Amino acid sequence: MDTDLVAALDIGGTKIAGALVDGGGELCLRAERPTPSQESGERVLRAVSEVLEELRAGVRWREVAALGIGSAGPVDSRRGTVSPVNIPGWRDFPLVEGVRRSVGELPVTLVGDGVAMTAAEHAQGAARGHDNALCMVVSTGVGGGLVLGGRPLTGPTGNAGHIGHMSVELDGDRCPCGGRGCVERIASGPNIARRALAAGWRPAPDSDTSAAAVAAAARSGDPAARASFARAARALAAAIAATAALVEIDIAVLGGGVAQAGDVLFAPLRQALDDYATLSFVRGLEVVPARIGTDAGLVGAAVACRALTTVRR
Amino acid sequence: MDTDLVAALDIGGTKIAGALVDGGGELCLRAERPTPSQESGERVLRAVSEVLEELRAGVRWREVAALGIGSAGPVDSRRGTVSPVNIPGWRDFPLVEGVRRSVGELPVTLVGDGVAMTAAEHAQGAARGHDNALCMVVSTGVGGGLVLGGRPLTGPTGNAGHIGHMSVELDGDRCPCGGRGCVERIASGPNIARRALAAGWRPAPDSDTSAAAVAAAARSGDPAARASFARAARALAAAIAATAALVEIDIAVLGGGVAQAGDVLFAPLRQALDDYATLSFVRGLEVVPARIGTDAGLVGAAVACRALTTVRR
Repeated sequence: MDTDLVAALDIGGTKIAGALVDGGGELCLRAERPTPSQESGERVLRAVSEVLEELRAGVRWREVAALGIGSAGPVDSRRGTVSPVNIPGWRDFPLVEGVRRSVGELPVTLVGDGVAMTAAEHAQGAARGHDNALCMVVSTGVGGGLVLGGRPLTGPTGNAGHIGHMSVELDGDRCPCGGRGCVERIASGPNIARRALAAGWRPAPDSDTSAAAVAAAARSGDPAARASFARAARALAAAIAATAALVEIDIAVLGGGVAQAGDVLFAPLRQALDDYATLSFVRGLEVVPARIGTDAGLVGAAVACRALTTVRR
Repeated sequence: MDTDLVAALDIGGTKIAGALVDGGGELCLRAERPTPSQESGERVLRAVSEVLEELRAGVRWREVAALGIGSAGPVDSRRGTVSPVNIPGWRDFPLVEGVRRSVGELPVTLVGDGVAMTAAEHAQGAARGHDNALCMVVSTGVGGGLVLGGRPLTGPTGNAGHIGHMSVELDGDRCPCGGRGCVERIASGPNIARRALAAGWRPAPDSDTSAAAVAAAARSGDPAARASFARAARALAAAIAATAALVEIDIAVLGGGVAQAGDVLFAPLRQALDDYATLSFVRGLEVVPARIGTDAGLVGAAVACRALTTVRR
């Protein structure tokens, strides 16, 4: 099915994006709606359906061989349901059944957004050519996915790679997931900003309090901003090293808004790896920025769909 | 090769065990030497050769189709070398080349001892029937291995499953591996005893200071002993939950001397899992004792060897 066209959906807490994706990973047609994340589950599904209707209206829809969905998680790919943390109206929501109204009998695959992003970076991005890789999105949340033995790992329910909810601080703060000391609780954008503000960072009057603003302050030498990024970097380093010890990866690819801070994050992260990635077989671990930008979710949903779909139209 | 006989070696810091193992996992012949762990690399190899000579002297050696080695790690199965932390004379030691003197052209496979133990529990023990499992040995050290998608994960260098050196305490104590806050630094037998002693546990005059003695004290209600096991249990729970979030497992199997403490360890461990295993897809995680005892290393080296060897004699 490599050369066929597939439809892809990338469902997040902010937007629902759709596209037709060709065998080379090029997007041929796009559609997008804001996610009505605080509304009812049916209302969110309607936004998904609107995106799919726009795609179906295109002349190439008849060539589409399958639909791949990458969704904010957790998902359950066996049951076709999703429970995204940031979309409260969707709890065990039957998303695959819901999209059937739009796509009929087309084969549909569902994976978590971390798995999708990883499939994209592995197929076309910074993890290309690596048989064993970790890909992460560090943004409002922290997500990820794994490539093992040359193939993206989905896990039985499509949730493998949830690195954001590994605990790296046994006695750490409670995370909204219910856990304690999770990577996300330390390294996500909002937590970087929270910690910088608590340590005395004062944003410019016209500035926001996003992680990007903290990164700008860190670049100008603000000690509270730098310290907050350094702490996030340590948590990420510990989790990346733990992953390498557990499944043997040789590269970690970091994308997402927080990763765009560049050296403010990557310099202390590479330094902190010396403290955690100490076993002989993990010492050579590379950490690099992601190459595929905001389209990674769509490209990856398409790649994962091609890998998992055996039925042809 | 399922029904053929294979030779197996289990190489640890205390002993070097060998056996012939049939297709049903039964051991037909055994040999063993203490590991001269503080002597030269060549001297340690001589002990391995002596074990192999004993096996070769048996009438069934001619039926042996391959040799499987499970060794204390790290190992490098691609290069056939080992660097066991507790055998300082072996650093990047060419073990596979070394055993060639005894076994000639027989196919030889090398995996870490955690991978071997996992292969055994998956084939014949507590992880049987589980496609996604974590197996751990909690003893003088903490090791482990993974079954993913129905097959033991070796990793490119045979080291996958090094859960003992995941950091669960970002600012924790230095571990002998060079890392910080490693599971092993908190949950291994010697560390359980160290913490109990520091908190005021006083062993009986005729008693040792092993983790087994701490476990006995904990069973009699000694608060320092109980607290030390509870702390180890939390570290194990955090690491098990992190593993489940990362690769989706539904069972964790615990073996080794410390796991023989029974409820003193398993009760606080299951309780602590509520604090760390919170995501929907990890909440059903079971934690159970290992079923295969001290032979797990030999049985597992044989199982891994059968899985990895394609060459027939």
